[in-house]
Amino acid sequence: MKPVNVGICGLGTVGAGTFNVLKRNIDDIDRRAGRPVRITHVGARRDNPDCDLEGIQVSRDIFEVVKDPDVHIIVELIGGTTVSKELVLAAIKAGKDVVTANKALIAEFGNEIFAAAEQKGVVVAYEAAVAGGIPIIKAIREGLVANQISGLAGIINGTGNYILSEMREKGRAFDDVLAEAQALGYAEADPTFDVAGTDAAHKLTILAANAFGIPLQFDKVYTEGIAEMTQEDVQYADELGYRIKHLGIARRTDHGVEMRVHPTLIPNKRLIANVDGVMNAVLVFGDAVGPTMYYGQGAGAEATASAVIADIVDIARDIDSPGLVPHLGFSVETKDLNVLTSEEITTAYYLRISVKDEVGQMARIADTLSQFGINMEAIIQKEAPDDTPLVPLILLTQPVSEKAMNSAITAIESLPSVTERVVRIRLERLDS
Amino acid sequence: MKPVNVGICGLGTVGAGTFNVLKRNIDDIDRRAGRPVRITHVGARRDNPDCDLEGIQVSRDIFEVVKDPDVHIIVELIGGTTVSKELVLAAIKAGKDVVTANKALIAEFGNEIFAAAEQKGVVVAYEAAVAGGIPIIKAIREGLVANQISGLAGIINGTGNYILSEMREKGRAFDDVLAEAQALGYAEADPTFDVAGTDAAHKLTILAANAFGIPLQFDKVYTEGIAEMTQEDVQYADELGYRIKHLGIARRTDHGVEMRVHPTLIPNKRLIANVDGVMNAVLVFGDAVGPTMYYGQGAGAEATASAVIADIVDIARDIDSPGLVPHLGFSVETKDLNVLTSEEITTAYYLRISVKDEVGQMARIADTLSQFGINMEAIIQKEAPDDTPLVPLILLTQPVSEKAMNSAITAIESLPSVTERVVRIRLERLDS
Repeated sequence: MKPVNVGICGLGTVGAGTFNVLKRNIDDIDRRAGRPVRITHVGARRDNPDCDLEGIQVSRDIFEVVKDPDVHIIVELIGGTTVSKELVLAAIKAGKDVVTANKALIAEFGNEIFAAAEQKGVVVAYEAAVAGGIPIIKAIREGLVANQISGLAGIINGTGNYILSEMREKGRAFDDVLAEAQALGYAEADPTFDVAGTDAAHKLTILAANAFGIPLQFDKVYTEGIAEMTQEDVQYADELGYRIKHLGIARRTDHGVEMRVHPTLIPNKRLIANVDGVMNAVLVFGDAVGPTMYYGQGAGAEATASAVIADIVDIARDIDSPGLVPHLGFSVETKDLNVLTSEEITTAYYLRISVKDEVGQMARIADTLSQFGINMEAIIQKEAPDDTPLVPLILLTQPVSEKAMNSAITAIESLPSVTERVVRIRLERLDS
Repeated sequence: MKPVNVGICGLGTVGAGTFNVLKRNIDDIDRRAGRPVRITHVGARRDNPDCDLEGIQVSRDIFEVVKDPDVHIIVELIGGTTVSKELVLAAIKAGKDVVTANKALIAEFGNEIFAAAEQKGVVVAYEAAVAGGIPIIKAIREGLVANQISGLAGIINGTGNYILSEMREKGRAFDDVLAEAQALGYAEADPTFDVAGTDAAHKLTILAANAFGIPLQFDKVYTEGIAEMTQEDVQYADELGYRIKHLGIARRTDHGVEMRVHPTLIPNKRLIANVDGVMNAVLVFGDAVGPTMYYGQGAGAEATASAVIADIVDIARDIDSPGLVPHLGFSVETKDLNVLTSEEITTAYYLRISVKDEVGQMARIADTLSQFGINMEAIIQKEAPDDTPLVPLILLTQPVSEKAMNSAITAIESLPSVTERVVRIRLERLDS
C-alpha cells in the first residue's frame, strides 16, 4: 500500500511525544493503518534533543512543511491561536488533511476552520484537543451516534482535579497545592488557564458541539474557576456525602442548551466522583445507551500523542476517499438550539452562610429562601469556631434557577445577622 | 445523498431495540450518517408487538433478507452459532456488509467469517458483541491505535458483577442473589453462560485479538466462574482492602499472551473496583496513553442497539469505499504470539486455609509455602468460629506461577492439620 507522509509542525512536548511514539511503535501502527505512516518533514524553530531527526527533512519555517507537495497530513502542534490558525488554513488551502491538538484554536476558530475544510474536502481532526489520550471525540461522534445525548459532565482539566483531590485527601490549602503543581510542571507558570477554567471551557465547547450538533460557541460558556475553594467547603461537602469536582457540564433542556464550567458537588458514590489526581473522565448520557464514562490521562506528551496518532491513522486508513465523519458529528448543524445564560440555568446548590449566633436566625434564613421558592434538602449547623461569633450554616437546596438563587442570596446577605458573603457551589446528582 | 438500506434479521430483545431506537432517533442519525439510513426489510419468524412494521417488508425466512438486492447491510440479531453463521456467510457471499451483536459467533467462528469478508471486500462489524453499548472495540481498534497494548482487564458480564456487588454490599449469599437476578431477567434461566464465565470468555477472546493482533482463540481462554464465591471470602477481601470482581484479563508478557476469566481480588481504590451492579467496564493499558477505562451498560435492548446502530452508521458513512479498519484491528495478524496455559501464568493469590487450632500450624504452612518460593504479603488469622475447631487463615501472596501454587496447595492440603480444601482466588493490582 502507498505510504502516507506526515509533516509535524512544532517539536515541543507534544510534538516530540508524537514523533517518538510514532517511531517506537511504527511496526504495529503500520500494520494497523494498513499502509506505511511516515514522518517525512518536521517544521520547528529549533531541534529537540529528545528527537532523532536523522533522515527527515527539517524546516525552520513551519510553512515550508505546508508547501511540501509530498506531505499528505499536516500535524499542527505549535499551540496558540495566531500562527497556528494561519498554518491550519494554509494547509487546508493546499488540500492537505490536518491533525491538531489545539483546543483553543478549535474552540475559538473551529467553525471557520471546518467550513474551509469542508469546502476543500479535507479533514481537520482534533481528538487530542479534548481530554488528552481518551478517545472521547470518537466515542461521541461515532460510538454514540445512535443516541440523543441529553448531557455530559467531564473532569477535563487535570491540574484543577489534582488540586481539588489533594485538598480533600490531605487537607491541604489551595495555594499550597497550586504552588506544588507548578513546581511539578502540571500547572502552567501562569495558572490562569487551568485554575480560572478557560482550558476546561475550551474543551467543553468542543464536547457540547459534538454532542448536540451545535456550532462551537466558546463565548457562551459560563465559566467559574476553583481559586475560591476552601478547605472548609471541601470538608463540609465530604460530611454530606459529596465530593467537589471542577466539572464541564453540557445539558440539553426543553428551553435550550446549557454550557458551564464550575466547581460542583457530586454524590461520592458516583464513579466520576472517584476520579482523582491528574486523571480526566467524561460521563455522557445517551437515551439508548444510558450513562457511559471514559477515563484516562488528560494531558502529558505521550497520552496526547496517542490521540494525535489515532487521528493520523484514521486519515491514513481512509486516505483514498474523503472522511465522512462530519467535523462536529452532524452533517447538518442544529443551529436553532438556544444556549441558556447562567441566570436561566437550574441546579441544586450548596450554600454556606455565616450567621451571628443569635436565636431565630436559622428560621429567618429558611424563611427568606422559601420566599424565593427554594426548598432545602439537608442542613448542617455547626457550633461557632473559637475565634469568631459566627456560626457556619450549611444548606443543600433542591434545584432552582440561578436567577432565583441570586435574588435569595442578595436578600440573605442583607439580613443584619449575616455579615459575610454567602458561599455557593452548584450541586449535580449526575443520575441522568 | 443516496440512502443506505438495512435489513434486520431477528426481532427479539436486541432486534426490537435496534428497530425502535433507529426509528425514534432517525432524524439525528441521518444527519450524523450524512445520508438516510432506512430499515427496508425485516426477517423474523414472528412479529414483535413492540415494533410497528408498517411499510416495511417482512419475511418469515431470514434468508430472504439476504437475497433482497436492495438491502446493503444485514444486521444479524438471531443469536446462536448455527443459523446465524450460515446467515452471515450467505450475506458476505452476496457482497453485503454485516453487523452482528453475536459474541459467541465472533469468538468461535470469527477467523473464518473475517477471512470470507476480506476476500469479498465487505465489512463485518461487531461492536455490540462486547460490553453492550460501550464503544470498546472502536476505542481499541481506532482510538488507541498508537499504542502497544500491554494488557486489559474487564468487568464484561453484568449478571456476574451484579451478584458479586450484592454479596459485598448487602451480605447476601450467592444462590440468593442469583435466584433474584433470574427473576429480574438479568440472568438467563440457565445461568451457566453468565456464572461459569463462558460469556465473559467470548468477549475476552474478542478484546484480546484486537488488543494484540492475534487470531481469535476462544479455546485457549482459561475460564473460572463465580459459583464458588462465598460471603466469607468477600468479607475477608474487604478487610484487606480489596474487592472481588469477575474479570476477563488479557496480558502480553515476554513469554506469550495470557487470556483468563476468573474471580479476582483488586485493590478497592482502583476505579474499576467501584464499578458495581450490572455495569460493565474495561480498563486498557497502552504504552503511550497509560491506563484508560470505558464504562457503561453491558447489556439490555437499547444499550446493545446503540452499538449495533453505531456500526450501521460507520458503514453508511463509508459506503462508497470499503472499510479500511481491519476486522481485528491489524491488517496483518501477529500469529507468532504464544498463548500461555494457566500453569504458566503468574499472579498473586488470596488463600484461605482452614487449620486445626494447634500450636505451630501457622509456621508449618509458612514453611511449606516458602519451600515453593512463595512469599507472603499479608496475613489474617482469625479465632475459630464457635461451631468448628478450625481456624481460618487468610494469606495474600506475592506473584507466583500457577504451577508453583498448585504444588504448594497440594502440599498444604496433605498436612495433617489441614482437613479442608484450600480456597484460592487470584489477585491483581491492576497498576499497569
